[in-house]
Amino acid sequence: VSDDTVSPAAPMRIAIDVMGGDKGAKIVTQGALQAARESRAHYLLVGDPNVIKPELAASGLRNVEIISATQVIEMTDQPTVAYKKKPDASVVVGAKLVKDKRADALVTIGNTGAAMAVSLLTWGRIKGIDRPAIATPLPSLKGTVVLLDAGATPDCDPNNLYEFALMGSIYTEKVLGVAKPAVGLLSNGEESSKGNELVKRAHALFTQQQEERPFHFFGNVEGGDVYRGAVDVVVCDGFTGNVFLKTSEGVAEMILRSLRDSLAEKKLLAPFVLPLKPTLHNLRKKIDYAERGGAPLLGLNGICIIGHGKSDAYAVQNACRAAERAVASDIVSIIRDRVCEAPAPPPPPI
Amino acid sequence: VSDDTVSPAAPMRIAIDVMGGDKGAKIVTQGALQAARESRAHYLLVGDPNVIKPELAASGLRNVEIISATQVIEMTDQPTVAYKKKPDASVVVGAKLVKDKRADALVTIGNTGAAMAVSLLTWGRIKGIDRPAIATPLPSLKGTVVLLDAGATPDCDPNNLYEFALMGSIYTEKVLGVAKPAVGLLSNGEESSKGNELVKRAHALFTQQQEERPFHFFGNVEGGDVYRGAVDVVVCDGFTGNVFLKTSEGVAEMILRSLRDSLAEKKLLAPFVLPLKPTLHNLRKKIDYAERGGAPLLGLNGICIIGHGKSDAYAVQNACRAAERAVASDIVSIIRDRVCEAPAPPPPPI
Repeated sequence: VSDDTVSPAAPMRIAIDVMGGDKGAKIVTQGALQAARESRAHYLLVGDPNVIKPELAASGLRNVEIISATQVIEMTDQPTVAYKKKPDASVVVGAKLVKDKRADALVTIGNTGAAMAVSLLTWGRIKGIDRPAIATPLPSLKGTVVLLDAGATPDCDPNNLYEFALMGSIYTEKVLGVAKPAVGLLSNGEESSKGNELVKRAHALFTQQQEERPFHFFGNVEGGDVYRGAVDVVVCDGFTGNVFLKTSEGVAEMILRSLRDSLAEKKLLAPFVLPLKPTLHNLRKKIDYAERGGAPLLGLNGICIIGHGKSDAYAVQNACRAAERAVASDIVSIIRDRVCEAPAPPPPPI
Repeated sequence: VSDDTVSPAAPMRIAIDVMGGDKGAKIVTQGALQAARESRAHYLLVGDPNVIKPELAASGLRNVEIISATQVIEMTDQPTVAYKKKPDASVVVGAKLVKDKRADALVTIGNTGAAMAVSLLTWGRIKGIDRPAIATPLPSLKGTVVLLDAGATPDCDPNNLYEFALMGSIYTEKVLGVAKPAVGLLSNGEESSKGNELVKRAHALFTQQQEERPFHFFGNVEGGDVYRGAVDVVVCDGFTGNVFLKTSEGVAEMILRSLRDSLAEKKLLAPFVLPLKPTLHNLRKKIDYAERGGAPLLGLNGICIIGHGKSDAYAVQNACRAAERAVASDIVSIIRDRVCEAPAPPPPPI
């Protein structure tokens, strides 16, 4: 275990796969360089040197190194197949840097399926964790709430949700600095009788363990509770979590577009709208994924931060910061230790 | 079957359970009276006469009748138990009016669990439909999209989703007047390979039936596609659908509250905000459930429209209108006939 801890003397090393994201490698490179500029960490930019070199030269930064990778896993590739067929893909090279202890964390943008498959196959799971989970930070009226799983494990059993609750709680406490995070179980009603079969069984498992449960269980929550900030962590299977995220983005997009369109429609109102621009900008910023950094993939023997596919340079920079925070808090070792300490959950009730 | 059709000469009869809803019986009564005032239908107001009488007297309406019901199924009651123990509950009395052909549809506000249990137990399922579904109309950038199931059947198999697709398609065509509605399957990605086990198997079932499929299958959709208006109908299990709805409401509430708060914060901007009020009001109206009427419970031998728990009088009125449209289009008979005609779906692939 001590091998994984970073000596305070040596700077941490963040590998970033610059070849992902909807906006292209140049934008990801620029985001990584912005992060490097404001950090004492050493940055390893993995990808096509022809893209990275000119940006790096212009930046004049010295804490950045280029790691050449000639292949790219495309969104259309089957991730596990691509892992074998494209050994020099940027995300594979980045994951190997972490495995070989040449980097402390990997940041990758957009292709969640590839990030997951490659990280899992390269690093393996933490002993005692059955399935990984993506922990996505979301805005709420009270600050930030962490949702997991956002898509790593679409089909779950109650034990998976139990492990997600434990990992999410540790991440929120140690990396985001929330004392004794409240964990909610996403359901179709707040009453303990509500839920599909999975959630009902998970609820029974969570409450059965009341005495020795290694996280603070709040109870069932609905989508509205999440956005009102009733809990710090919300747990669900990866299918439901992914629907939750994309639905939220869809609603926000519809509302902001409708608002913009109806303001644009009434040209007479233009002089009134202008002074409101900063307010509208702040609102957009508040609900924008970019502000909250990337989402860590939890449960593996390595740190992978997955940035949103739509990330601009600023969002990439924030994903890099999330990686630095995760390394600084030594999250993998803590999860590993706490999973060993935590009593195994009882067999799920039938 | 001909027994169920309404003669064009006789006015249709809408039964409304006035005892539901967060805002109380008086508000529901007022909404029902507003609906009756603008309609040639006969309205049967079921509930406590002491609440209904003064409102009815003040309205001077003649197409309204009071049906006394002395009991109420509370949100805390177990619906199937309450059905037996409270035979004079307003929702039970209303459902019986429909069963006895004294009413053509039932409208009830708020308590979805009770509405579902009582309707199912009183009317039974349409032959060939295995599970009922709640079809909720949602706003999209292009108009209205119908989501089902919004909570009637939390755990589904692929055949259930197939039946939801068929019923949702019929409802959207016959009641909402959309020609050849496009049906999407809610998933965690647009590719056919995406989904949890249920969605993958449902997708295989839907596409396998391409030749004879009695609805227009668009493919998998994500939450963003739904709100962009990519499809007219979106199908999912009742747990996911309920999470979808409540998450959407939660996001909308958070955004509108943040907008209001940040405008209120900057008092200097007040003179600029005033002229924008109608625009903001329209936006709220656009995303407001109240505008789109209640949600029909499909798959049973009777029409039940479930209004949102937060319904004000205007929303109740719109739920009553939805009931009138459903009766006018004879939706139960059409579903019954189309289910008989439609070839049974092939056994789901393993």
